[in-house]
Amino acid sequence: MGKTSTEIIYGASPVIESLRAGRRACHEVLISLGRKESLASKVAELAKDRGAPVRYVAKEEIAKAADTPKHQGVAARVDPYPYVELEELVRSAVADPRKAFLLVLDGITDPHNLGSLMRTAHLMGVHGIVMPRDNQALVTPVAVKSSAGASEYLPTARVTNLARTLGYLKEEGIWIAGLAAPGEKTIYDNNFKGLNIAIVLGSEGKGLRRLIKEACDFLLFIPMEGEILSYNVSVAGALAMAEVVRQRRSS
Amino acid sequence: MGKTSTEIIYGASPVIESLRAGRRACHEVLISLGRKESLASKVAELAKDRGAPVRYVAKEEIAKAADTPKHQGVAARVDPYPYVELEELVRSAVADPRKAFLLVLDGITDPHNLGSLMRTAHLMGVHGIVMPRDNQALVTPVAVKSSAGASEYLPTARVTNLARTLGYLKEEGIWIAGLAAPGEKTIYDNNFKGLNIAIVLGSEGKGLRRLIKEACDFLLFIPMEGEILSYNVSVAGALAMAEVVRQRRSS
Repeated sequence: MGKTSTEIIYGASPVIESLRAGRRACHEVLISLGRKESLASKVAELAKDRGAPVRYVAKEEIAKAADTPKHQGVAARVDPYPYVELEELVRSAVADPRKAFLLVLDGITDPHNLGSLMRTAHLMGVHGIVMPRDNQALVTPVAVKSSAGASEYLPTARVTNLARTLGYLKEEGIWIAGLAAPGEKTIYDNNFKGLNIAIVLGSEGKGLRRLIKEACDFLLFIPMEGEILSYNVSVAGALAMAEVVRQRRSS
Repeated sequence: MGKTSTEIIYGASPVIESLRAGRRACHEVLISLGRKESLASKVAELAKDRGAPVRYVAKEEIAKAADTPKHQGVAARVDPYPYVELEELVRSAVADPRKAFLLVLDGITDPHNLGSLMRTAHLMGVHGIVMPRDNQALVTPVAVKSSAGASEYLPTARVTNLARTLGYLKEEGIWIAGLAAPGEKTIYDNNFKGLNIAIVLGSEGKGLRRLIKEACDFLLFIPMEGEILSYNVSVAGALAMAEVVRQRRSS
């Protein structure tokens, strides 16, 4: 199903947003016969704009290409995910008069969580994601689907040594806020206004690694009660990002 | 595989929390051989406290009983989910000196979203969930798993006519805040302090129904930017619940 240097993304939003964003080449769009006409013609038009051929096929062929029945009748063969260079991402973030806003992931392993975080981050105005090369979910077609296509807009950089990267971000004038339990104070008691900020999230099972915690300027937690252990990481990340946005827009 | 009047919940947190909560009878606990000893003995001890027999079986048997490989080596045959009566839920919520805090769902169809919302709601101190009988995901074992077991603590009431129920909540002195786009103001510009509050979330695809919107006291939205359409409903619900908590704890 395509050369190893391409991959199949699937679902209406992923295919539409990938074509709209145009950050990676699209080699072919598959639309299943009998789809809602308005969606099919929208996708076909976007494909035409990008010069990508469209094939109308049976939905079984899309399911086979996408390796899932959750394709909503649309798939596309595209170039691999276009990761960006860290320096490029940081440069454009710190140039924003609204102040830099980054999301750093310290080993998120579930691609659904990665996708959910990308969706939220994009809607919160985050400049980009920074994540380690190892022990970290990649921006796979599963993550793209969970992101509702936000992955296609959101710059994402992979780095070899995350602790060292946090040092580099500090040198660039970015404050590092890690989510941790126990933390020093709540996200609501920390000042995010007027600062370049990177929010750091730990892995689903283990949270932040020790070296990463030590590299943070603040260790923050989210108030909670109840009988269970913790928020899902994609919810915790959303709550932290939202607090940055809330404080910045408050007068 | 149990009688039709029981069901199989699975996963470490769901089984542990169901046994701890004790809100529904547990008829049998299955633990797969070769599990981490500490987890197995913790589950076995809780089962003993509840008088539930434990069987040590091969993981394939658990996978078959749970109908999924995502069982983490633990499953339990339990009574059906113990929904509560609306009036009972409302009575205990309005009796709380911290003010009532309810989450109302207008047709969430994905059990993962339902479970995620239950997990967050429980950690936010929500008194309970209100949801319609029709066109609404039930608290299935999938939802229980996504809730990390929070479902076993969080009272949940099913109602026949959600619009009429909102009228009843108003009569009980509860303000109804619906999340909708476009809304009248942002969640950050609404006052939640000192009020009994019910947050109402619409379905994944269509948002709030017209009659439900009309029954709300406020229609609120979450600020967003970016190229994609909207937050995931479980993230949007988390952000709204968190804003209630944030305002209530601020002086």
